[in-house]
Amino acid sequence: MKFLLEEICSRVGGRVDGDGGVGISGVNALETAGPDEITFAESDRYLDQVRNGTAAAVIVGEDFPDLPGRNLLRVTNPRLAFVQVMGLFVPLQESTGIHADASIAEDAELGEGVSVGACAVVAGRVCIGARTIIEPGAYVGPGVVIGEDCLIEANAVLMQGVRLGNRVIIHAGATIGGEGFGFVWMGDHHHKVPQLGTVHIEDDVEIGCNSCVDRATMGVTRIGRGTKIDNQVHLAHNNDIGEDVIIAGQGGTSGSVTIGNRAVLGGRVAVADHLKIGEGAQIGGGTGVTCNIKPGETVWGFPSRPMKRVLREQASLARLPDALKVLKKQSKELEELKARLALLEGAAKDPA
Amino acid sequence: MKFLLEEICSRVGGRVDGDGGVGISGVNALETAGPDEITFAESDRYLDQVRNGTAAAVIVGEDFPDLPGRNLLRVTNPRLAFVQVMGLFVPLQESTGIHADASIAEDAELGEGVSVGACAVVAGRVCIGARTIIEPGAYVGPGVVIGEDCLIEANAVLMQGVRLGNRVIIHAGATIGGEGFGFVWMGDHHHKVPQLGTVHIEDDVEIGCNSCVDRATMGVTRIGRGTKIDNQVHLAHNNDIGEDVIIAGQGGTSGSVTIGNRAVLGGRVAVADHLKIGEGAQIGGGTGVTCNIKPGETVWGFPSRPMKRVLREQASLARLPDALKVLKKQSKELEELKARLALLEGAAKDPA
Amino acid sequence: MKFLLEEICSRVGGRVDGDGGVGISGVNALETAGPDEITFAESDRYLDQVRNGTAAAVIVGEDFPDLPGRNLLRVTNPRLAFVQVMGLFVPLQESTGIHADASIAEDAELGEGVSVGACAVVAGRVCIGARTIIEPGAYVGPGVVIGEDCLIEANAVLMQGVRLGNRVIIHAGATIGGEGFGFVWMGDHHHKVPQLGTVHIEDDVEIGCNSCVDRATMGVTRIGRGTKIDNQVHLAHNNDIGEDVIIAGQGGTSGSVTIGNRAVLGGRVAVADHLKIGEGAQIGGGTGVTCNIKPGETVWGFPSRPMKRVLREQASLARLPDALKVLKKQSKELEELKARLALLEGAAKDPA
Repeated sequence: MKFLLEEICSRVGGRVDGDGGVGISGVNALETAGPDEITFAESDRYLDQVRNGTAAAVIVGEDFPDLPGRNLLRVTNPRLAFVQVMGLFVPLQESTGIHADASIAEDAELGEGVSVGACAVVAGRVCIGARTIIEPGAYVGPGVVIGEDCLIEANAVLMQGVRLGNRVIIHAGATIGGEGFGFVWMGDHHHKVPQLGTVHIEDDVEIGCNSCVDRATMGVTRIGRGTKIDNQVHLAHNNDIGEDVIIAGQGGTSGSVTIGNRAVLGGRVAVADHLKIGEGAQIGGGTGVTCNIKPGETVWGFPSRPMKRVLREQASLARLPDALKVLKKQSKELEELKARLALLEGAAKDPA
Repeated sequence: MKFLLEEICSRVGGRVDGDGGVGISGVNALETAGPDEITFAESDRYLDQVRNGTAAAVIVGEDFPDLPGRNLLRVTNPRLAFVQVMGLFVPLQESTGIHADASIAEDAELGEGVSVGACAVVAGRVCIGARTIIEPGAYVGPGVVIGEDCLIEANAVLMQGVRLGNRVIIHAGATIGGEGFGFVWMGDHHHKVPQLGTVHIEDDVEIGCNSCVDRATMGVTRIGRGTKIDNQVHLAHNNDIGEDVIIAGQGGTSGSVTIGNRAVLGGRVAVADHLKIGEGAQIGGGTGVTCNIKPGETVWGFPSRPMKRVLREQASLARLPDALKVLKKQSKELEELKARLALLEGAAKDPA
Repeated sequence: MKFLLEEICSRVGGRVDGDGGVGISGVNALETAGPDEITFAESDRYLDQVRNGTAAAVIVGEDFPDLPGRNLLRVTNPRLAFVQVMGLFVPLQESTGIHADASIAEDAELGEGVSVGACAVVAGRVCIGARTIIEPGAYVGPGVVIGEDCLIEANAVLMQGVRLGNRVIIHAGATIGGEGFGFVWMGDHHHKVPQLGTVHIEDDVEIGCNSCVDRATMGVTRIGRGTKIDNQVHLAHNNDIGEDVIIAGQGGTSGSVTIGNRAVLGGRVAVADHLKIGEGAQIGGGTGVTCNIKPGETVWGFPSRPMKRVLREQASLARLPDALKVLKKQSKELEELKARLALLEGAAKDPA
C-alpha cells in the first residue's frame, strides 16, 4: 500500500505544509520513522525530533511551528489523525471463502461472503451473518448465532447456543459459553449445579486471546455493546457487563457481577461475586474489588479502597517502622516523667 | 422438555400444595420465572415475591406459609431440590459418534459409544473408555488413557501419556500434561530440566476452560477424585491435589504444592512452591500463600495470614494516618512536659 | 531405554564406586527410586536415605562418604549431573512427517524433516525450517517464519507475520501475535488503534501453555534469546524482553514494558505500562511492579518496593494493632501527667 501525502490529507482532513506529493508507504513512531513513513508529534515539545527526523511527513497540531523543508500535515488532534492514518495501512483480512478442509454441518446457515478456515468446525443449526470470518481451527457449537462482519480467530471456541451481535471480534484461543462454576456440597461430594443459561455478546465487542466468558446458570451472561476485553480475562456466569466497558489483561470476575457502562478496569482487576461496579468507575490495576463501587468512583488496592485513601495508607505504612520506634521511646520517656513527677509530688506533699 | 409438577415431585421428593397437573417447561430465578417455569424460595423472607410472582410453581420449605392459589412444592431443602430439578432440564449431550472429519490413529482403542468430533485428533496407543465424548478440535496425545463417561471439550489438549479416570470433564481450551517449568542456570544459559513425569486425574474431576495442569518432572502430578477446578487455573509440576478440593478461577500453584482433601481456594489464590495446604483449609480470594496452612485454617491476604489477623491489621492500617498525627502531637507534648517538669525541678532544688 | 551405570558415567563424567554394570532404566527421586532407577543426593545430609534406599545407583558428590554395597556415581555437581542423566531418558519426539489430515497451503515452504500433525493448519507464504514439528491442531498464520528445530505444540496459534528463531518451543494453546489492546475514546465509542506490528521470538525461547504474546502497535514485540516463559503469561504489545529472562506462571505485562537480560520474575508478577525492569533484577512472586526497577534490584509486594523494606513494613504492620492501643494509653497518660503537672505548677506559683 502506498499513498501520497495529499491523499492522506484528503482522507483525514487537515492541511499540508510542504510537498503533498511525497509517497507514504507506512506509519511509524517519531524516533524510528524513515523516509517513506509518516509519523506524528503531539506537541512542540517534539520540535527538535521533527526537525531532525527522516520521516516523509509528520502529523502535527495547527499551532506547531513552521519547519520549511519538512512535510507537515496540520490537524486539530495529531494523535487521533495518526490513528486514522494507521487504519489506511491495516492489511485487508484475507478472505478464504469456505476452505476445503473446513467442517460445516449441513444445516448450518452461512450468510453471503462468509469465510470458514481450514479445520474450523461449524456445528448444526448454526447461523452466521454476512461477511463474518471464522479462522482456522475455531469451533462454532450447535445452535450458535453470529452476526455480520464478525471475526472469530483461530482456535477460538463458541459453545452451544451462544449469541453474538455484529462486528464482534473473538480473538484466538478465547472460549465463550463454558459452564459456570457452581457446586453444592452434599456431605460427601460436590454436586454440580446445572448450567442452563447462555452468553449474549452485543455489537462491536472484542474479547481477547485465551479469555473466557462463562454461560449463565440460568438466563444470560451479557457483554454490552462496544465493550473491549483484553487477553486472559475470565468473566463468570451471570455477569452483566455494560456498554463501552474496558477490562484490561488478566482481569477476572466471580459470578453475578454487574459492571456499569464505561467503567474501566485496569490490568488484573478481580471482582468478588454479586458486586456492582457503577457507571464510569475507574478501578486501578491489580485491585481486588471486595465491595460495591459507586458510579464514577476511583478505587485501588487489595482490598479495594478509594484511591486517595490507599495512597495515604501506603505513605503511612512506609513511615510505620520508624513510628514504632518513636512510640517505644515515648513510652520510656513517659515512665521517666511519671517517676520524676512522683518525686516532685512527694516533695511538695512532704517538704523536707 | 416438559414435566408436570407432580412428575417433578415424584423425582425430587416432597409434597405438592396446589395443582400437581401444571406443566413446567423450564427453571428460572424467583424474580424472573414465568407461567411455565418452576423456581424456589429459600425462606419466608421471600413470601411476597412468591405470592406476587407468575411462576407455575415454587419450591419452598416445609414450614413455608400456605398460599392458596399458588402451586408450591414443599421439600426439606428448597435450594438443593431446585438444583435437582435443574438437572431435569440439562440438554442431553449430542452424541455424534465418530465424525467423518475426526483424525484417529489406527491403533487407538475406543470403547463402546465413544464420540469423536470433527477435527479432533486421537493419536496412537490412546485408550478411551465407553461413552466418552471428545469434542471437535480436541487433541488426545500418544498413549493417553481416558476412562468412561468423560467429556473432553472443544480444543482441549491432553498431552502424551496423561491418564484420566471416569466421569472427568476437561473444559474447552484446557491443556493437561504440559511440561513443568524447570531450568538450571549454567552460567551462560538456562538448561532445561527434562520433564519426564505425567498427570493423573482421578474420577469425577472437572478442569475449567483454558486451565493448565503441568506434568511432573518425575513421577506424577495428581488431581484427586471429585476435585473441581475453575477456568484459567494453573497447576504446576508435581502438585498433589487431594480429593473434593475446590480451586476457583485464575488460581495458580508453583511446583510440588500439596493441597489436602476438601480444601477450598477462592478466586485467584496463588501458592508458592513446595507448600502444604491442610485438609479443609479455606483460602480467601486473592490470597498469596507464602507458608504452610494448617488443616481447617482460614487465611487471607498477601502474604497469607489468619483471616482474623488480616482484618485486624486492615482496620489498624485505616487508622494509621491519623495515628501518626497523634504520635507527632504526643512527641511535642512530651517535650513540653519535660521542659515544664525541669523548671519545677529546678525550682524545687533551688527555691528562690 | 536402558543404560548401564558405566555408560551413564561415560556420558556425564565422574567415577563409579561399585558395580558399573548395573542396568538403569529410569530416573527418580531419592525417596522413591527403585532397583532399576538412578537418583541423586545433593549432600551427605541424605546419607541414611542413600544407605537404606533401593535405587540401582545414586549420583553423589566427590566427598560423599563411602558406602560399600551401594553403587555410587561420584561427580562434582550431583544435581546438574542428574539433570543431564534425565536428558538420556527423554522420549524422542515422535516425528510424523506430514500427516494426511494436515492442511498446508500450496505456497508454504517446509524445510527438510518438518513434521505437521493432523488438523494442523499452515497458511500461505509460511516458511518453516528443517526438523521443526508442528503438532496437531496448531495454526501457523499467513507469512509466519519459523526457524529450525522448533516445536509448536498442539492447538498453539501463530498469527500472521510472526517470526520465530531456531529451537523455539511454543507450548500447547499459546497464542503469539494477537492484536495489542489499544483504543481511543471518541466521546461515544472506543475507536480501535490499528495493530500493525508483529512479534519476533529469538532463538531458544520457550513460551508456556496458554500464554499470549501480543504483536506491536507499530514495530516489534521482542522476546530475546534464551528467555523462558511459563504457562498463562500475558505479554502485551511492544514489550522488549531481553535475553535469558525468566517469567514464571501467570505473569503479565502492560504495553511497552522493557525487561533487561537475566531478570527473573516470580509467579504472577504484573508490570504496569512503559516501565523498565533492569538487567538481573529479581521480582518476587505476586509483585505488582509500579515503578522502574534498577538492575540487580530485588523487589516485592504490591505496589513493588525493595524486598527489605517490604519485610520491615510487614513486620511493623503485624505490630500495629497493639501499637495503636499503646498510643491510646499514652494519650491518656499524657493528659494525666499534664493535669498533675499543672497542679504542681499552681502550687509552686501560689504556695499555700
